[in-house]
Amino acid sequence: MQFASDNSGPALPGVMQAMAEVNIGHMPSYGTDAPMNEVRDRLRDVFEAPQASVYLVATGTAANALALATLSEPWQTVFCTPLAHIHTDECNAPEFFTGGAKLSLVGEADKMTPEDLARAIALWPAGDVHNPQHGPLALTQATERGRIYTCAEIAALCGIARGHGLPCYMDGARFANAVAALGCTPAEMTWKVGIDAVSMGGTKNGCLGVEAVIFFNPENAWEFELRRKRSAHLVSKHRYLSAQMLGYLREHLWLRTAQEANARAALLEAGLRDVPGAEMVFGRDVNMIFARLPRATHQRLKAAGAVYGLYEGPLESGAADEPLMARFVCDWSVTEQQIARFLEIARG
Amino acid sequence: MQFASDNSGPALPGVMQAMAEVNIGHMPSYGTDAPMNEVRDRLRDVFEAPQASVYLVATGTAANALALATLSEPWQTVFCTPLAHIHTDECNAPEFFTGGAKLSLVGEADKMTPEDLARAIALWPAGDVHNPQHGPLALTQATERGRIYTCAEIAALCGIARGHGLPCYMDGARFANAVAALGCTPAEMTWKVGIDAVSMGGTKNGCLGVEAVIFFNPENAWEFELRRKRSAHLVSKHRYLSAQMLGYLREHLWLRTAQEANARAALLEAGLRDVPGAEMVFGRDVNMIFARLPRATHQRLKAAGAVYGLYEGPLESGAADEPLMARFVCDWSVTEQQIARFLEIARG
Amino acid sequence: MQFASDNSGPALPGVMQAMAEVNIGHMPSYGTDAPMNEVRDRLRDVFEAPQASVYLVATGTAANALALATLSEPWQTVFCTPLAHIHTDECNAPEFFTGGAKLSLVGEADKMTPEDLARAIALWPAGDVHNPQHGPLALTQATERGRIYTCAEIAALCGIARGHGLPCYMDGARFANAVAALGCTPAEMTWKVGIDAVSMGGTKNGCLGVEAVIFFNPENAWEFELRRKRSAHLVSKHRYLSAQMLGYLREHLWLRTAQEANARAALLEAGLRDVPGAEMVFGRDVNMIFARLPRATHQRLKAAGAVYGLYEGPLESGAADEPLMARFVCDWSVTEQQIARFLEIARG
Amino acid sequence: MQFASDNSGPALPGVMQAMAEVNIGHMPSYGTDAPMNEVRDRLRDVFEAPQASVYLVATGTAANALALATLSEPWQTVFCTPLAHIHTDECNAPEFFTGGAKLSLVGEADKMTPEDLARAIALWPAGDVHNPQHGPLALTQATERGRIYTCAEIAALCGIARGHGLPCYMDGARFANAVAALGCTPAEMTWKVGIDAVSMGGTKNGCLGVEAVIFFNPENAWEFELRRKRSAHLVSKHRYLSAQMLGYLREHLWLRTAQEANARAALLEAGLRDVPGAEMVFGRDVNMIFARLPRATHQRLKAAGAVYGLYEGPLESGAADEPLMARFVCDWSVTEQQIARFLEIARG
Repeated sequence: MQFASDNSGPALPGVMQAMAEVNIGHMPSYGTDAPMNEVRDRLRDVFEAPQASVYLVATGTAANALALATLSEPWQTVFCTPLAHIHTDECNAPEFFTGGAKLSLVGEADKMTPEDLARAIALWPAGDVHNPQHGPLALTQATERGRIYTCAEIAALCGIARGHGLPCYMDGARFANAVAALGCTPAEMTWKVGIDAVSMGGTKNGCLGVEAVIFFNPENAWEFELRRKRSAHLVSKHRYLSAQMLGYLREHLWLRTAQEANARAALLEAGLRDVPGAEMVFGRDVNMIFARLPRATHQRLKAAGAVYGLYEGPLESGAADEPLMARFVCDWSVTEQQIARFLEIARG
Repeated sequence: MQFASDNSGPALPGVMQAMAEVNIGHMPSYGTDAPMNEVRDRLRDVFEAPQASVYLVATGTAANALALATLSEPWQTVFCTPLAHIHTDECNAPEFFTGGAKLSLVGEADKMTPEDLARAIALWPAGDVHNPQHGPLALTQATERGRIYTCAEIAALCGIARGHGLPCYMDGARFANAVAALGCTPAEMTWKVGIDAVSMGGTKNGCLGVEAVIFFNPENAWEFELRRKRSAHLVSKHRYLSAQMLGYLREHLWLRTAQEANARAALLEAGLRDVPGAEMVFGRDVNMIFARLPRATHQRLKAAGAVYGLYEGPLESGAADEPLMARFVCDWSVTEQQIARFLEIARG
Repeated sequence: MQFASDNSGPALPGVMQAMAEVNIGHMPSYGTDAPMNEVRDRLRDVFEAPQASVYLVATGTAANALALATLSEPWQTVFCTPLAHIHTDECNAPEFFTGGAKLSLVGEADKMTPEDLARAIALWPAGDVHNPQHGPLALTQATERGRIYTCAEIAALCGIARGHGLPCYMDGARFANAVAALGCTPAEMTWKVGIDAVSMGGTKNGCLGVEAVIFFNPENAWEFELRRKRSAHLVSKHRYLSAQMLGYLREHLWLRTAQEANARAALLEAGLRDVPGAEMVFGRDVNMIFARLPRATHQRLKAAGAVYGLYEGPLESGAADEPLMARFVCDWSVTEQQIARFLEIARG
Repeated sequence: MQFASDNSGPALPGVMQAMAEVNIGHMPSYGTDAPMNEVRDRLRDVFEAPQASVYLVATGTAANALALATLSEPWQTVFCTPLAHIHTDECNAPEFFTGGAKLSLVGEADKMTPEDLARAIALWPAGDVHNPQHGPLALTQATERGRIYTCAEIAALCGIARGHGLPCYMDGARFANAVAALGCTPAEMTWKVGIDAVSMGGTKNGCLGVEAVIFFNPENAWEFELRRKRSAHLVSKHRYLSAQMLGYLREHLWLRTAQEANARAALLEAGLRDVPGAEMVFGRDVNMIFARLPRATHQRLKAAGAVYGLYEGPLESGAADEPLMARFVCDWSVTEQQIARFLEIARG
């Protein structure tokens, strides 16, 4: 009963297999390996973007911080929500990689509205040397609360940013889950609605540790390469990053895996609605659920070995029926049986 | 006939096996996995340093830049040779991670002498606010030319640095090869002769991509952790770094592999001495050879598909007997047969 | 009728005179001049802090950014209000000087409350490597809205910060105006209530360009000196900074000037209350007033040559009685006659 | 008998007078003052460059570090001599402002040759992501040893740099002294021979603290402004920087002052040649002399109160006739009488 995070699960057999396949003989290093050529071709196909620049890095924070640094200047400000991973969970990596850019917080939730964004941009007068200058828009898709922007919502936000001449970045740590939930194509969710660069996460969706960064404008390519090298994120035995991504892309594994994870979460969510005292929070679009359950329910679940994030507390003492918020994430390896067992305990 | 680099070869079966073993079920992320606990214990044993702080990162440049940043301040200067990897091959990563520290070049070769170091330190008066301030000593062991410092040489250099209150770092990208060549213990080559922090490379010696960073003084631990996170080098599914290192440490695989690589290089070196017109350069202590061969010899070898670095040229045109320098590196996967075949062609 | 800013006025005769006095013969450079020795002694007296480290820089942003950088680490977050000069008007200088620290915004106004601060600190769990780490508290005294914290309010805020082990910095660009308004001593407003470092502005209060930075804990001294030099803020002909500060400190000129500026603003404020349609905003504690006046009034004033900041608009078109917010600042050189003339026009 | 440095002397009466003249009434701040408009026009005239972007900062290190940061990227390397002020005397300011660029040392003296430069550039292969990338050339004119490059020498060096697509910067802390020595125009010494940006120092040549930075290509303007603001070098009461430069430019004061300082140094040099045991070092082109004098001579001079830099020692003990190197700098305020007196004592 493991619902702590989609980065605590194992890697997909198809990904492990691809790793084993490339472990033969010598190959050129630092991204010039033949598997990377195939990854590049395949990702350009997936995104219907034959000119796109494609890179692999090992962590989502590297993808975010390197892409934002490439799209911004140190005297600018990035626009993101107060719940954005780049703001709350990267220990100032964006500030480090950009050379000291600021993050301006837009709105008050995990999703921003066009009005929120317009207001945040207007806060800093354009062309005034005293305040931070306008920099890139950064959206998280799916969000840190498990919700998604529709393609129309993304278009509206990018439209505002581009109206100010600002580039648009999408943190796609759960990119596949969002595509699966929307039923759209990667292109429809990105460059067709104004996204300039996107990370397509593999780590949370069944890889060991690999994220693709795609720039639809190849002008950014060389700068990104230099930034990646300078930040020690250009790996020598690059074939093992390539192989993960290859295995992930073959036969739509990336999409099928996300569809399954989303389906498991839907199953869990449906069951939770029947748990006495449960209340759902935020809504759920992908593989992540926020819900409040009575303290006594949490106590039963934890005692039975269920693992998940509890945001309110304390667990041990207090009214048995007091609702405490928790986060439940389903990765690809969570089974229907485990969910059934979990719900059985939850229902008491 | 692959002698380009020890980072173009495949991963050891024992390392791949360890990866497969940990790919089961859920595990805590970000370095709190059980395999990492075992790695920590084992590395403390290997270094006879029960208090040491131990971390894993995926690249040698990350290990170097993070360790140096932890040991220095932005207004200081690191002391290294002009051939140091941190100076020539990391695209300013040390300058980036340290926040702008300078690298002062010591001596004119891959190894520095105590006199070189004393002179370089004396160039910057202590306590003068105008010039760069004295920062850490950085030694590469084995060096970028395939040579090693003896333990006594390290002791002498660290003695000078410590006499000025400076910390001492060892870039051990080829740590195992150096230990194998010296026949000493890791402790004898590090903290017993004054080293404060060391990287112990796995990548070039049969892993996929993992380097251990060890601080003998645990005071540096928390700062290193924050720097690692902030530079996006704290991986979420850390078990796959842990597993590589575990497989590498089990049954002295790290040392045995290095011994074999060194032995292969010795075999190659011995053979090269018999090649007409060959002259050895720099000497050889580990698994890397620099040698000059006649142009015609290089032409024969390259035509036969041999892969290695050629530093002088051009290959195609010029006197047949003109000597051109090349670098030959033996990784664990190079076989005696391949070496024999290579030498046969070289001899003409 | 010049009310745009206290940095658009001329320098005090007493300051100009002191500049002329030191312009004789040769003097040691880079802060080792005899006038600086006197400045150091006098400022230690002013602050009743014989051990304090004292530095001069030429701009308020330099004072803020250097002090905060000295008190923080790149992976930390500074706590300040959303209106803080360091956040809104320094083009990311704090982020630059700190090496990429974050600014966490506390409360929603120019003054923060202890509850605001406690909430902001609690947002980032202590000791979690993923989020920004807790860094210094930064208060502006007087605030960017012309208000002041009482000594008790400062004590409460510093108490919370210190309870978390955080250092406390005071941006004193209008330090003298605040002391004048409170009628307290510099010590009472700083180290006696928990401030670790403070800037004491001279520029806005009649100097040409000089700010003192005082660290009550001399441990920070050498790091500040290195940071000042490295950021190009250690001037060679330092005597001209020293002289400004000397002239400013002699015969309590700093305090008397601030008292006069505050008094002028009080006069202006009293008059504005009688202007038809005027409404005061924020309150006024020092030499800065925010007020809304009808558009027609602004049109009359601007036509007559009055200079001040207008925050709402447009001036030219719209209802004559629509109130538009403006900022009026009185520097030492504003006369009672000018204020009278201004009010006469304003009253229509 | 003050020969320590041209930054330890007083300011010119003409400069002090200009300061007093602008100290009247209110003026717009942050570089929008009317005197700055005049400075801009005058400097464009002086440089015969009507499109040039012109800025003022208070220190030479700010001028250098800001200009180099504007002309480079963090992953590049600046090319300068090992004696360059930016390398030896700015406590890593260039590394800080550039965001971590490296300084590659060219040649072994205060002046580089075209061969030196070509060799240094060739050391880093172009377009290789692993090594530092080629960045700007930085020349010091006059050099840190008091010598100058001829216009033809500058042309040759810039020609090499530009052949690699690299921008060319001139550190003109003693710009006026060099122009005076060469008898050329500012344009002939800069953009006509390939310089893209130059600092024209005022501080060492009779100002209080002001340096002009001129970009001949106005494309760099806005970035420089943002960098200046972000580094806290945009002063609010900018009129006092403007006034210094105005006084300095009026009636060719900048050039006449440098001519006089150079002439004084020539007088001193001529006299030193007659001092028993004296030997001149490096040659002298401007207002700075390096010479070796017997220890006994130094002892006499120091006893008589002469102030200058002594580079070898110790002064107190050792053979009376051992030659010790010293630096003598003449600023505008050194009189012929002082020089005569100094030489009299030196001759014994």
